[in-house]
Amino acid sequence: MPVITVDGPKLSKEQKTELVKSITKAASEIIKLPEQAFIVLIQEREMDNVGVGGVLLSDKKTS
Amino acid sequence: MPVITVDGPKLSKEQKTELVKSITKAASEIIKLPEQAFIVLIQEREMDNVGVGGVLLSDKKTS
Amino acid sequence: MPVITVDGPKLSKEQKTELVKSITKAASEIIKLPEQAFIVLIQEREMDNVGVGGVLLSDKKTS
Amino acid sequence: MPVITVDGPKLSKEQKTELVKSITKAASEIIKLPEQAFIVLIQEREMDNVGVGGVLLSDKKTS
Amino acid sequence: MPVITVDGPKLSKEQKTELVKSITKAASEIIKLPEQAFIVLIQEREMDNVGVGGVLLSDKKTS
Amino acid sequence: MPVITVDGPKLSKEQKTELVKSITKAASEIIKLPEQAFIVLIQEREMDNVGVGGVLLSDKKTS
Repeated sequence: MPVITVDGPKLSKEQKTELVKSITKAASEIIKLPEQAFIVLIQEREMDNVGVGGVLLSDKKTS
Repeated sequence: MPVITVDGPKLSKEQKTELVKSITKAASEIIKLPEQAFIVLIQEREMDNVGVGGVLLSDKKTS
Repeated sequence: MPVITVDGPKLSKEQKTELVKSITKAASEIIKLPEQAFIVLIQEREMDNVGVGGVLLSDKKTS
Repeated sequence: MPVITVDGPKLSKEQKTELVKSITKAASEIIKLPEQAFIVLIQEREMDNVGVGGVLLSDKKTS
Repeated sequence: MPVITVDGPKLSKEQKTELVKSITKAASEIIKLPEQAFIVLIQEREMDNVGVGGVLLSDKKTS
Repeated sequence: MPVITVDGPKLSKEQKTELVKSITKAASEIIKLPEQAFIVLIQEREMDNVGVGGVLLSDKKTS
């Protein structure tokens, strides 16, 4: 039943497969719950929709 | 002011209308706050972006 | 695998039992996935930690 | 390290730039952490995916 | 109906009052929706429950 | 800037230290962003506040 959300950049299908596998395995071993109990939600977010230090990532990239 | 988020698969407009109506009604009766106070946010997530038990849903579907 | 989050006021154990049962049943019927696939997360939030219209709920209550 | 999420309607690039700048500045001054520590995530949500008072926003608009 | 979540450190009541007021005002002006439509949820998180760069904030503080 | 949220059971300080370290390392390698850019938020949730299949975890445990 643990729910892990990863909010980050666009990823390829291969990266998503690997990400879900690795994070579930690591969390399962540490939290001591079976891998089957874990849900991972991937949220891909455009650089226009993330601000760091008051500036959009998409504006930082153009500088 | 309660905020209910439903993170799940793609839904039709009819399913969304029904989902918001039913969940708001049920929650309003149990929490004892007027329906008008409830906000429901629907998050439709691609099967590429959900992992269960360390495997992407989109990979499970192809097996 | 749908994950439903309810962010609202403090609830009794009985309210939580009822809320999880009703919302899961309603969502399962509409989304057409088995009840067993649904996870509900309840987030109880203090009135000091919610603002509506620019004012904390805890300040509205004292007026 | 504070993470601020804004879940609302579609915004222009100019609105996003301004939103991230203003909210980060306000929060930084009040929380007393440097602006550089703040992350803002913008979630644009379709009116089909928001319910208020048991009704989808997209249905309210057509009335 | 926009929902703004602020996930950060422990705050005083005065800081929360000010935070909700300032952020709602700023967001209302930019998004062009009335202040009354905005909900702000404050999530206070212990330094044991935040990791930056792979290290808990509570461990960084002791160094 | 990726933000990873882990919503699960109560954890010891040692588990949290290890969880943040492992997940950040795994995600950093796959997403190809420096570990320093990752934030991990741990949300410990009581068994009274999680429902699976329409039943609270705290009720499942007593059976």
